[in-house]
Amino acid sequence: MAPTRGPRVKKGLLERLDSGEVVIGDGSFLLTLEKRGYVKAGLWTPEAVVEHPNAVRQLHMEFLRAGSDVMQTFTFSASEDNMESQWEAINTAACDLAREVADKGDALVAGGICQTSLYAHHKDEVRIKRLFQLQLEIFARKNVDFLIVEYFEHAVEAVWAVEVLKESGKPVAATMCIGPEGDMHGVTPGECAVKLVKAGASVVGVNCRFGPWTSLKTMSLMKEALQAAGLKAHLMVQPLGFHMPDCGKGGFLDLPEYPFALEPRVATRWDIQKYAREAYNLGVRYIGGCCGFEPYHIRAIAEELAPERGFLPPASEKHCSWGSGLNTHTKPWIRARARREYWENLRPASGRPLCPSLSKPDV
Amino acid sequence: MAPTRGPRVKKGLLERLDSGEVVIGDGSFLLTLEKRGYVKAGLWTPEAVVEHPNAVRQLHMEFLRAGSDVMQTFTFSASEDNMESQWEAINTAACDLAREVADKGDALVAGGICQTSLYAHHKDEVRIKRLFQLQLEIFARKNVDFLIVEYFEHAVEAVWAVEVLKESGKPVAATMCIGPEGDMHGVTPGECAVKLVKAGASVVGVNCRFGPWTSLKTMSLMKEALQAAGLKAHLMVQPLGFHMPDCGKGGFLDLPEYPFALEPRVATRWDIQKYAREAYNLGVRYIGGCCGFEPYHIRAIAEELAPERGFLPPASEKHCSWGSGLNTHTKPWIRARARREYWENLRPASGRPLCPSLSKPDV
Amino acid sequence: MAPTRGPRVKKGLLERLDSGEVVIGDGSFLLTLEKRGYVKAGLWTPEAVVEHPNAVRQLHMEFLRAGSDVMQTFTFSASEDNMESQWEAINTAACDLAREVADKGDALVAGGICQTSLYAHHKDEVRIKRLFQLQLEIFARKNVDFLIVEYFEHAVEAVWAVEVLKESGKPVAATMCIGPEGDMHGVTPGECAVKLVKAGASVVGVNCRFGPWTSLKTMSLMKEALQAAGLKAHLMVQPLGFHMPDCGKGGFLDLPEYPFALEPRVATRWDIQKYAREAYNLGVRYIGGCCGFEPYHIRAIAEELAPERGFLPPASEKHCSWGSGLNTHTKPWIRARARREYWENLRPASGRPLCPSLSKPDV
Amino acid sequence: MAPTRGPRVKKGLLERLDSGEVVIGDGSFLLTLEKRGYVKAGLWTPEAVVEHPNAVRQLHMEFLRAGSDVMQTFTFSASEDNMESQWEAINTAACDLAREVADKGDALVAGGICQTSLYAHHKDEVRIKRLFQLQLEIFARKNVDFLIVEYFEHAVEAVWAVEVLKESGKPVAATMCIGPEGDMHGVTPGECAVKLVKAGASVVGVNCRFGPWTSLKTMSLMKEALQAAGLKAHLMVQPLGFHMPDCGKGGFLDLPEYPFALEPRVATRWDIQKYAREAYNLGVRYIGGCCGFEPYHIRAIAEELAPERGFLPPASEKHCSWGSGLNTHTKPWIRARARREYWENLRPASGRPLCPSLSKPDV
Repeated sequence: MAPTRGPRVKKGLLERLDSGEVVIGDGSFLLTLEKRGYVKAGLWTPEAVVEHPNAVRQLHMEFLRAGSDVMQTFTFSASEDNMESQWEAINTAACDLAREVADKGDALVAGGICQTSLYAHHKDEVRIKRLFQLQLEIFARKNVDFLIVEYFEHAVEAVWAVEVLKESGKPVAATMCIGPEGDMHGVTPGECAVKLVKAGASVVGVNCRFGPWTSLKTMSLMKEALQAAGLKAHLMVQPLGFHMPDCGKGGFLDLPEYPFALEPRVATRWDIQKYAREAYNLGVRYIGGCCGFEPYHIRAIAEELAPERGFLPPASEKHCSWGSGLNTHTKPWIRARARREYWENLRPASGRPLCPSLSKPDV
Repeated sequence: MAPTRGPRVKKGLLERLDSGEVVIGDGSFLLTLEKRGYVKAGLWTPEAVVEHPNAVRQLHMEFLRAGSDVMQTFTFSASEDNMESQWEAINTAACDLAREVADKGDALVAGGICQTSLYAHHKDEVRIKRLFQLQLEIFARKNVDFLIVEYFEHAVEAVWAVEVLKESGKPVAATMCIGPEGDMHGVTPGECAVKLVKAGASVVGVNCRFGPWTSLKTMSLMKEALQAAGLKAHLMVQPLGFHMPDCGKGGFLDLPEYPFALEPRVATRWDIQKYAREAYNLGVRYIGGCCGFEPYHIRAIAEELAPERGFLPPASEKHCSWGSGLNTHTKPWIRARARREYWENLRPASGRPLCPSLSKPDV
Repeated sequence: MAPTRGPRVKKGLLERLDSGEVVIGDGSFLLTLEKRGYVKAGLWTPEAVVEHPNAVRQLHMEFLRAGSDVMQTFTFSASEDNMESQWEAINTAACDLAREVADKGDALVAGGICQTSLYAHHKDEVRIKRLFQLQLEIFARKNVDFLIVEYFEHAVEAVWAVEVLKESGKPVAATMCIGPEGDMHGVTPGECAVKLVKAGASVVGVNCRFGPWTSLKTMSLMKEALQAAGLKAHLMVQPLGFHMPDCGKGGFLDLPEYPFALEPRVATRWDIQKYAREAYNLGVRYIGGCCGFEPYHIRAIAEELAPERGFLPPASEKHCSWGSGLNTHTKPWIRARARREYWENLRPASGRPLCPSLSKPDV
Repeated sequence: MAPTRGPRVKKGLLERLDSGEVVIGDGSFLLTLEKRGYVKAGLWTPEAVVEHPNAVRQLHMEFLRAGSDVMQTFTFSASEDNMESQWEAINTAACDLAREVADKGDALVAGGICQTSLYAHHKDEVRIKRLFQLQLEIFARKNVDFLIVEYFEHAVEAVWAVEVLKESGKPVAATMCIGPEGDMHGVTPGECAVKLVKAGASVVGVNCRFGPWTSLKTMSLMKEALQAAGLKAHLMVQPLGFHMPDCGKGGFLDLPEYPFALEPRVATRWDIQKYAREAYNLGVRYIGGCCGFEPYHIRAIAEELAPERGFLPPASEKHCSWGSGLNTHTKPWIRARARREYWENLRPASGRPLCPSLSKPDV
C-alpha cells in the first residue's frame, strides 16, 4: 500500500459517498483549543479564527495530515446572537482558514452551523431561520463545498436549519447531539433521521454529547428507521473521543467530570480503531469525531480503514500500525508490545485507585 | 492582579532563581507532537524542527502563552549518534525556533542535551563527551541562555555532560530521569544530586519517567542530601503529566500502557495545581513538566502560583480560575461546578469499568 | 420500639400478606454452607440435612434470629432425579429441621421445590410433574405451612409445578430465576407473572441469578403486567446478595467470577437496607434473599422495615442501627462513623487496584 | 492422597513445629459471629460462649473440618476489666467448647489472651499482669495445650503477658497486631520479635489489623531480626482475610470501611492459597487467619499445603481442588472454569463501578 494518497481532482461529498467511499471527518476544535490556550471554556466560541489564526490553521493542518477529508469551518456558535458584531469577521476568517488548508490536500470545506441560543427561549422560526440565513450567505460567498448542520438538541430546529441551507443547492449533512433516548422533546433518533432526510439532508447522523459506542447505537436506530421509511441517505457519526457509558439522556454535560476532568475518559487510538471498524460495519461512511478527538484519533480511523480505502494518511509517515515501531526497542518487554494483539487486549489502568470507574449523571 | 505580565528586560536564569522567583518550565514535546502527527513513537527524535517547523513553533507558542519562562530547544536525542548527518541542521533549527518564540515574551532559551545511546554499550568517556561538545558548540553559537542536561539514567554520564557544558560559562541545570530508588547503578537520588552540584550544576532535579508525586518524593531526597552535604543549588522538577503510582524502578517505560495507552492516566489541571503547590512548598523553584504535560497543565502551574508571582500568563485570558467560567451556564447543576471546592474534591471516573486502576510493571 | 416481638399465635402466609404485613424470607443456604464446608459446589445438593444436621439447624437459627419469618426447607435439587435413593430421607429431614427451628419463633415452614434437571433434556410433562408430586407428598405429610416454587428458568415448567402444588390446598408462592429480559424461551417477566397467577400461585416474583436492583426492575415489570391483566397476587423477591450490574440474560452463572470469586461483589448491610426500602416502596411484601444473603443481610431487611413492622428481630440485641455502636470508640475518627449518613454515603473500596469493577459475561 | 487424616495420638505444639510440620490456625470469630448475629460490633466481646454456645461450637466445628489444628478459646477481651462478673464463666465455657470440638479431631486447644484496655490509660505493670494471671489460672485448670498472646499493639505489654504465661510451663505463642512500621511506640517488628523471644515465647509473629501480604512483609522483618540476633523461634502469621494494601500504620481500623463495609475486600480462596504458599516459602509454619478468615479460607490453606502435609482436611470431601468440581457442568463456558490457571489468573470485579479500588486511611 502506498503510504499516502497522491493529488487528484477533488470529488464532491456526494460523489464520494455515492461511489461507496469512506469520508473521514475532522475532530475536536473547542476542547482541543481550550487546552492549547485559545478558547474559553463555558463560552465555547471560535474567536480564535481572528485572534490567533495560526493556532487554528495548525489544528486544521494536523487533521488534514491525520487523514481528514473534510475541513469544517471553525464557526461553532458563530451566529449573530452569540458573537455580536464579530460574527461576520469570524465566519469569513473561518472559511478562509479551512479553504487554505483543505487545498493543501484533497479535503473538502464544510460550512458548519449549530443550534441557536434563541431556541431555548422562544420558538420563533422566522428569527431563527434568519440567523441561519446570515451564516449561509457567507458560506455561499466563500464557496464551501457542502454544509453541516450539527449539535442540535431539537429535531424541529435542525429541520429549520436544513430547510434554510438546502436552498443553497449544496449538499447538507445534518447531525443531532442526541443519544438512543432521542431529543429533548422525546423525538426518537429514528424520527429525527426521517424528518431531516425529508427536509432535504443528504447525510444524517449524530455528533458530540455521547461516546463512540453509544453514538453507534443511536446510528443503528436511525438506520433502521430510514430503512423502514424507505428513505435513502448517507450515515454520519462524529462522537466524543471519550469513554462515556455512564451518560444519561443529556450526555456528557451532566456527568460531574464535564468539562474540566474528562482526562481519564480519553479514548486510546486502539479504541478508535475499533469504533471505526464498527461504524464501517454498520454502514456509516462519513466517520469522524467531535470533542476529545485529537488528530491521532483521526489517524486511527484512517489506518483502520486503510485496507478498504487503499491508502494511508500523510501522518502515518510518523506512525507504525499497531505499535510495530516498538519492535526495535532495546528492552525485550517493550518489544513485546509491538503487535496488534497486545494493544487490542490491553485494559489500560487509570493510575487513580481512589477514583471510581463510573459516575452518576447530575440529572 | 493584572492579567498578564508586561514586557521587561530579561533576567537570566540564576538571577531569577537567586532572587526567589519561580521559573516555570515548559512541557511535553515528543508525546504531544506524536499525537499531532510529527514525531514517530519508538524513535522519539526531533526531526520535526526541520520537517514541520510550524508545528514546533506553534507548540512553543502555546507553552509561552501558558506561562512557560523557558523555551527548551527541541533537541532531544539530537546528538550525532542518533541523527547522523541531520544533527547539525536539527540543533540549529531548534535553537532558532526556541529563540523566535522566546523573544515574543520574557522567556529564556535553554539548550537541551540528553543521555547518549552509546553509554548503554560502552562507557567511553572521550567519545561521549565529544558528542556533548558538538551539540554545545551549536548552542553556544546560537547563544542560548542556559543549558539543560536532562533524561539521564546514570549519574556518571550526567556528570560528564555537566563537566562539558559548564565550560561554556552558561548556567547548567541537570535533571535525571530517576525515581526514589535511584539510578540504574544504584546511586541514590541524594548521591546523584551531590555529584551533579559538585560537577558544576547550578540547578538539579528530575525529569520524566515518573509521575508528579513520585518525582516530588525524589526531590525531597535530593534536597535532604544537598543540605546534609552543605551544598547549595536550586531545585527543579519536570515530571510526567500522568498518574503513575504503580511505577517500578524503571518508571513508566515498564508499565504495560507505555506508550500507546496512557490516556486514562493524564492529569487534570487541578491535579497539576496541587502538584505545583507541593513543589513550591518543598522549595522547588524551577517547576515544569515532561511527557504528558500539555500547555494547559503549564497554565495550571502559572495560575496556582500567581499569588506568589503577582501575574497570570497570557493564556489565562481564556481561562477562569477554578472553573468559575461555568457560573453563567444555563443549567444549575453545571453552574454548581464553578468553584474550587468542587474541582479539588472531584474524583474523576475513567468511564472504563472493565479496566483496573493500577497495573503491574513488566519488570 | 420493643427490641423483639413477643410470642403469638402463628398466622398463615396469606393471612399475613393480606393484612398488609411484611413477610421476611430467609437467605443463602447452598453458597453459605459451601463456605462452611457442608455443600459441594457444582453439585449444589442438600445432603447436609442428613449428614450434618447441626450445621443446617444452626443456619436456620441464624436466619430466625435475624428476622426471617419463613424457614424454607433445605430441599434445593432434592428431587428423585438428582438425589437417587437419598431423596426421601433428605426431604423428610429438611422438613423436620425447618419445623424445629420455626417453632422456636413465629416463623412459617415453606416446602421448596425447584426446576428439574429433566426439563433441559426433554419436555415430558408427566414425568416432571411426577417428580414434583413425590416431593409434595412429603411436604404434605410433614404439614409445611406453604409451598415455594423457585429457581425456574422456564415459565412452562414453573406453571407445571404450581399446578401440582396447588392441589395440596396450601398457598403456593412462585419465583422464577429470571431478569428483565425474561425466561430462556423469551417469555417476558410480565407474561411469566400472569401465567403463574393464572395457574394458581398466590404470590409471584423472582429469586436468585440477579442482584437486588436488577431483580427489583424485573419485579416492577411483573407488577405492571399483573395490573394490566387485572390480576391480584402478592409480590415476592429473593435476589442474590451480590452486586451484579454486569449480568447478561443468564445472570450470575455467566459472569467469570461464578462461583468461586464472588467475594468483592457481596453487598453490605447498608446496601440491603436500601434494597429493602425500594422493594417495600414498589409494593413487594415478601422480601428475602438467595445466594449470598447471609444472616446479617436478613437482619438489615428487618431493621430497615422495623418502623413499618413495629418490632426488631432477636439478633438486633447484637446490632445497633446505622453503626451507632461505634459511638463509644476511643478513636474519634471511628466514633465519627456512628451515624447513618456516613454509611449511606460511603463508597467502599475493593482493596484490589489490579481488578476491574465490572466483568463481561462469558455469553 | 488420602482424603482425610486418620486418628492418632496428639502431639504438642512444639513437637509438631520442631519436627517441621505445618500447624494450621483457625480463623475469624468476632466478625464472623457478628454477621451470624451473636457478637456486638464495637464491643467485640465473647459472651456468646455462654449465651449461645451452639453457635460458637458450630464455628469451632467448621474450622476443625476445614483443617484447623488449633481450637483457640473464644476469650478475646474476656479479661476482668472488660467483662466484669461474667469473666470467669466466659473463660471457663470457652475452654470447654474448644476442648469439646478439638477432641473430635487431632486439634490442640490454645488459651488466648489479648491486650488490656488498661494499658492505654496507665502503664501499671502489676495490675495488668494480674489480669493476665487471672485468665491463665482458668486456662491452667482447664488444661489447655498451649497459650496464645495476641492482638498486642505495644511490645512492652506483650512482653508482660509472655512473662506471666510462660510460668505455666506451657508453650507460649505471641503475635502482635502490627505492620511493617512497627508498634505504637515505634518499636520495629524485628525488635518486637526479639523482645518476645527473649521474654520466653516459643513462637512469634503477627495477627489481625493488616492483610495477608502486608503481614508477610512484617514477618520477613521479624525473621531477619531473629536471625541477626541469633535467636531461634517458630514463626506464626494470622492476618486479616481482607485485601488491605491501603492500610496506614494503624491498620484496618483507620480505613473508612471498618467495620461495616469491608465486604468488597474479602479474599477469595485462591488468594488465600497464594498467601499460604508464600507464608510457607518464607519459613512460617504456624499459618492461620484472623478477622475475615472464614472456614473455607482455612480449608484453602490446608489444600494448598496438602502436598507437603500429605493429607486433606475433612471439609475437602465437599470441595474439589481448583474448581475442578465444575467439570461436569452443562454449560461449556462454566466447565472451562474447572482449572487452576483460570482461578489463579482471574481478576475478580467488584460489581461496584461507582466505588474506588483503594481508600485513604482516616489518619
